Amino acid sequence: MRLRDHGIEVGIFKIGKHNAITDVNGVKVGHTTLVGGDSIRTGVTAIVPHEGNIFQMKVPAAIYIGNGFGKLAGYSQVEELGNIETPVILTNTLSVPIASDALISYTLQTPGNEDVRSVNAIVGETNDGWLNDIRGRHVKQEHVISAIEKASAGEVGEGNVGAGTGTICFGYKGGIGTSSRVIPKSEGGYTVGVLVQTNFGGVLEIGGVPIAKELNNYPFKDKILNDVDGSCMIVVITDAPLDARNLKRLAKRAIMGLAKTGGIASNGSGDYVIALSVAEENFVPYTSDSPVQEGKFLKNDAMSPLFLATIEATEEAILNSLFAAETMMGRDGHTIQALPVDKVVEMMKKYGRVK
Amino acid sequence: MRLRDHGIEVGIFKIGKHNAITDVNGVKVGHTTLVGGDSIRTGVTAIVPHEGNIFQMKVPAAIYIGNGFGKLAGYSQVEELGNIETPVILTNTLSVPIASDALISYTLQTPGNEDVRSVNAIVGETNDGWLNDIRGRHVKQEHVISAIEKASAGEVGEGNVGAGTGTICFGYKGGIGTSSRVIPKSEGGYTVGVLVQTNFGGVLEIGGVPIAKELNNYPFKDKILNDVDGSCMIVVITDAPLDARNLKRLAKRAIMGLAKTGGIASNGSGDYVIALSVAEENFVPYTSDSPVQEGKFLKNDAMSPLFLATIEATEEAILNSLFAAETMMGRDGHTIQALPVDKVVEMMKKYGRVK
Amino acid sequence: MRLRDHGIEVGIFKIGKHNAITDVNGVKVGHTTLVGGDSIRTGVTAIVPHEGNIFQMKVPAAIYIGNGFGKLAGYSQVEELGNIETPVILTNTLSVPIASDALISYTLQTPGNEDVRSVNAIVGETNDGWLNDIRGRHVKQEHVISAIEKASAGEVGEGNVGAGTGTICFGYKGGIGTSSRVIPKSEGGYTVGVLVQTNFGGVLEIGGVPIAKELNNYPFKDKILNDVDGSCMIVVITDAPLDARNLKRLAKRAIMGLAKTGGIASNGSGDYVIALSVAEENFVPYTSDSPVQEGKFLKNDAMSPLFLATIEATEEAILNSLFAAETMMGRDGHTIQALPVDKVVEMMKKYGRVK
Amino acid sequence: MRLRDHGIEVGIFKIGKHNAITDVNGVKVGHTTLVGGDSIRTGVTAIVPHEGNIFQMKVPAAIYIGNGFGKLAGYSQVEELGNIETPVILTNTLSVPIASDALISYTLQTPGNEDVRSVNAIVGETNDGWLNDIRGRHVKQEHVISAIEKASAGEVGEGNVGAGTGTICFGYKGGIGTSSRVIPKSEGGYTVGVLVQTNFGGVLEIGGVPIAKELNNYPFKDKILNDVDGSCMIVVITDAPLDARNLKRLAKRAIMGLAKTGGIASNGSGDYVIALSVAEENFVPYTSDSPVQEGKFLKNDAMSPLFLATIEATEEAILNSLFAAETMMGRDGHTIQALPVDKVVEMMKKYGRVK
Repeated sequence: MRLRDHGIEVGIFKIGKHNAITDVNGVKVGHTTLVGGDSIRTGVTAIVPHEGNIFQMKVPAAIYIGNGFGKLAGYSQVEELGNIETPVILTNTLSVPIASDALISYTLQTPGNEDVRSVNAIVGETNDGWLNDIRGRHVKQEHVISAIEKASAGEVGEGNVGAGTGTICFGYKGGIGTSSRVIPKSEGGYTVGVLVQTNFGGVLEIGGVPIAKELNNYPFKDKILNDVDGSCMIVVITDAPLDARNLKRLAKRAIMGLAKTGGIASNGSGDYVIALSVAEENFVPYTSDSPVQEGKFLKNDAMSPLFLATIEATEEAILNSLFAAETMMGRDGHTIQALPVDKVVEMMKKYGRVK
Repeated sequence: MRLRDHGIEVGIFKIGKHNAITDVNGVKVGHTTLVGGDSIRTGVTAIVPHEGNIFQMKVPAAIYIGNGFGKLAGYSQVEELGNIETPVILTNTLSVPIASDALISYTLQTPGNEDVRSVNAIVGETNDGWLNDIRGRHVKQEHVISAIEKASAGEVGEGNVGAGTGTICFGYKGGIGTSSRVIPKSEGGYTVGVLVQTNFGGVLEIGGVPIAKELNNYPFKDKILNDVDGSCMIVVITDAPLDARNLKRLAKRAIMGLAKTGGIASNGSGDYVIALSVAEENFVPYTSDSPVQEGKFLKNDAMSPLFLATIEATEEAILNSLFAAETMMGRDGHTIQALPVDKVVEMMKKYGRVK
Repeated sequence: MRLRDHGIEVGIFKIGKHNAITDVNGVKVGHTTLVGGDSIRTGVTAIVPHEGNIFQMKVPAAIYIGNGFGKLAGYSQVEELGNIETPVILTNTLSVPIASDALISYTLQTPGNEDVRSVNAIVGETNDGWLNDIRGRHVKQEHVISAIEKASAGEVGEGNVGAGTGTICFGYKGGIGTSSRVIPKSEGGYTVGVLVQTNFGGVLEIGGVPIAKELNNYPFKDKILNDVDGSCMIVVITDAPLDARNLKRLAKRAIMGLAKTGGIASNGSGDYVIALSVAEENFVPYTSDSPVQEGKFLKNDAMSPLFLATIEATEEAILNSLFAAETMMGRDGHTIQALPVDKVVEMMKKYGRVK
Repeated sequence: MRLRDHGIEVGIFKIGKHNAITDVNGVKVGHTTLVGGDSIRTGVTAIVPHEGNIFQMKVPAAIYIGNGFGKLAGYSQVEELGNIETPVILTNTLSVPIASDALISYTLQTPGNEDVRSVNAIVGETNDGWLNDIRGRHVKQEHVISAIEKASAGEVGEGNVGAGTGTICFGYKGGIGTSSRVIPKSEGGYTVGVLVQTNFGGVLEIGGVPIAKELNNYPFKDKILNDVDGSCMIVVITDAPLDARNLKRLAKRAIMGLAKTGGIASNGSGDYVIALSVAEENFVPYTSDSPVQEGKFLKNDAMSPLFLATIEATEEAILNSLFAAETMMGRDGHTIQALPVDKVVEMMKKYGRVK
């Protein structure tokens, strides 16, 4: 059961059909989940922005760094050129290189790319080294390719799947979460979808209710109960026609959604937001005859509803990851409990926040 | 009555003596409030980081821009050199030039500065043009000088004072607000103080309670009830010994506090955070014999509690501004209501959030 | 006589009709030169990007900061929104506030702007305090308005005029300089124009010829002969249809042109580049019915010739400022010699660099 | 023979003992050169900043991006935390992942790092795909480890070695180059060393002499003779005690040195500068008891001579790469000629630039 299934709502905008990043037309998500033996608890999540050859039809993009203690691959070229040319891959910290290599393999092998000699792989990560034998680097190229190939539209697996298999959030089991918002017709009717890989700390709140306090599980007490370090990867996709500059502005708002869950972007956190606009008319062809590209882009003045939609969907995606994740035992017998959902729902009732 | 006087608390850290930016040792605040005739509703707020000649003993600083639709003066030199050399002035949008000019006058006239020929004035602003005849540019140099000269330690005026005289926040009367946090001794025992000038929109929440929904006053409905545009100026000061890089990181967290009140950093918002460290040992002398400066700086690893303190104090400072501000009529008969505090406290009770 | 009149050329691209920023269609430049008594040696230069109401028809823009020890007004809003809404004003450091105030007055008073309550004034500066009584702040609002009103197309005054009246460059009298380039038809045939206010130091080279060494006038010798501090303001305008992202990239290249003259962007330097695209189809209307703007923008792949054009025109504009400026005596009897042009031309001949 | 061996000098500062990056105390460089069959023309260059365990004793660092069309790994963590924790590796574009993986292996296996679960690998690259079968990804982990292990002080191999094996610069064979400068005692007596991997285009100048024009080999003519795209990786190391902020400023100046050779940082260029300060007193221990670090850092005011030193050493390092590189045939029979050094020296004589 997801957050809303319990009668808990955040925000004022409507959700999309699946309340998922895949509500944005053409977007697909695939997971490879690696759970093996006592200590392999990791995986790969692929977000595929459109069906075509992404290298040949690049997608306007921006990356915002909330806190940069992380190893995301591909940042500077996106910053310079304003687009991405591969699917977005999420995995664990020490598997960024192999995942990048896999994206290069994938791109070189895609029909039509026979002459490609440069690939900007986009790979985000969080560190699942508490539950997972991260030093073993168990992710292989085929796991990445498989996540891309399995990617599908519609419902998206949440919790202990893909890149979320071994993550920890607010001291509880984190994972993959997703949500979406559709802004009013009068504001353009666009959809914003968010997918997160949650592995961060702070002082958990749900709809502002002080869950962490109630559960007596929060940082900076005498004994550190909840290690604030860790990271959150956030992918935001919209069908609104945005250029790279406005995508960067959109990406910045996702961190505001994270803030509303009680996240603090701690020193050790790698909080990155990758924002994409999949309005087809603005895809950037790798080769073309004209030095000029015609485009239709949303004006600055029309951005505010999209900002709010991003904040709301990010907040809810994070909470969905917590509601979906299940207790997991991993490396060296470490066990991370799932969020005690029943208790939490009780609290939310006590505070008048369940419909 | 401030937020806490109603039994409403946000955050887990303790507040300082006055729950104000002046809880940071040596920091002073002064206001010049301009209310005249039907349409003058503006003013000046001065934040003075230490008692000395600030130009001669510069203060480590950073500025983070949450959303840059604003006219703050002084950004680039702070970014380049990592310090400020004047008090921080807040005022209205069209009075930034005169306030900058006043800071130049103030600096040139300060004894010891007879040979100074370059001054980087720090002036932030929000647009009070709905209530105030902003086109009239009623702020004069003497108003700025006066705010500096009147600056004092201890309690800080909130609400419709100084630069907050004519501002609007979440559709209600905004203004000046302040708050502070003291982190645990085990984490260093430092104080973080925040002062805000609130003039922005969004979907108001208090401690996560959906006040805007309850009051049926929020944006992007059929009729725009709450113009999201506007701005928030945030000044963060700490006695923790931080260099400019870590001050910038601290400044970024203030926007996360803003997010928790329901702010969205809308397109038209100028959301700037000025962060200062007043640890004396790191003040930067204008002239000195040695090309090398010895300093003691907090390590990256020790930053997280300060991040949380900044988030909490910013959230509470914003709420304090709303609780303090009173209904005001101004230009062209425009009236902005105060937040209906009684109703709000009722709601907070209903949601179990009043102690 | 300008650089080329002596048979000295830099670069491979052709110049425009006037070898000036005004070669870009619609661009006008105006100067107010203030020379009075023993110590007033300053002024104002206005660059007007198009004939219309600039606030109502904003111009795509970006600002790059080579070194930020400076007080340029207007940076953050340009960074956020990607456009400017006033003419660009250059003046002295301590007159930035009054010039900003003048731009506000100018904008508020322009017919059609009766309801405008927010203006992002763009004012750059360098410090002419060695020759000029900068503490006296002799620039007044009318000087700024007058520079805008006098602005004209065609030839541009260079040397000791406008904002260049009291500046110093490489230890010689600096000032205003300008140059332009037209890229080949096959690359789009666009024009790039540059105007500079030169007030910086380094080790002067002309076409790579070590002029400073030959003249025995360069910094970091036993005795400091050439104070490296100071600043350079650079305005780059093109008719190529560029968005803000590519304008920022263009702006970055201007500093590469500065480098070729021997500039080093010293610690005390405020080196700012303001880049504008005056392709009309991309002007940004203040008000419009549609949330979407259609535009034609040059692709990333077509940028390189414009980069080179910017480098060349900046280098030549700086050299033109030195060739035009004349010896000036100012404050406290300080005298700055003009570049000894005859000697320099002799050297250039010796090194085989005069046609 | 290097540039200076021909009697050609650039700049005013003295060089260090080896005129190499290794003139900075403790710095070592190692190359693995891969030349095999018809089409393997690539390699790895390792720059090792100090002898110790770099992960345990991190090095203050900053990265500046001149133009970001590149795949450098490790950027964001350096930007956030201000230090590096691995050696710096240079290689080809598509081998960044394997080199990153190798740095992780190297770090995990270094004694003392048994509990390390997060590594920020620093890997730069340029694209050698014209001469090298880059799609074959021939670099393996052992090549990277070997370059680190072979790293030594003293003279540094230049030209077609290591990561420079297959690169092209100004249409001629590029490669690895290095140079250094020692600033005067009165300015601190610090050393700045630079190492470059040259693979970029533009309009070659040597000491400002228009070599490209004389050789009739430059871009944007009817036929493109010199593809401007490509990249330049620049590593700057100094023993001056600089914090991350001033290291970033230093890094920016390296691009000014590149500009003086005629480079333009073209659209397709990945021009990155990695700057390190190896003043031991400021190394950052991975673990320590104190939350505060005492440091001695150079003041802003003392930076200018270091800026000039960086510009000079970068310019000379690039030229050294061209003077050292030899004609190479590679993939598909592609041949890139060495710079015709004899002709070039003749030209330099003609222009009076040979001592």
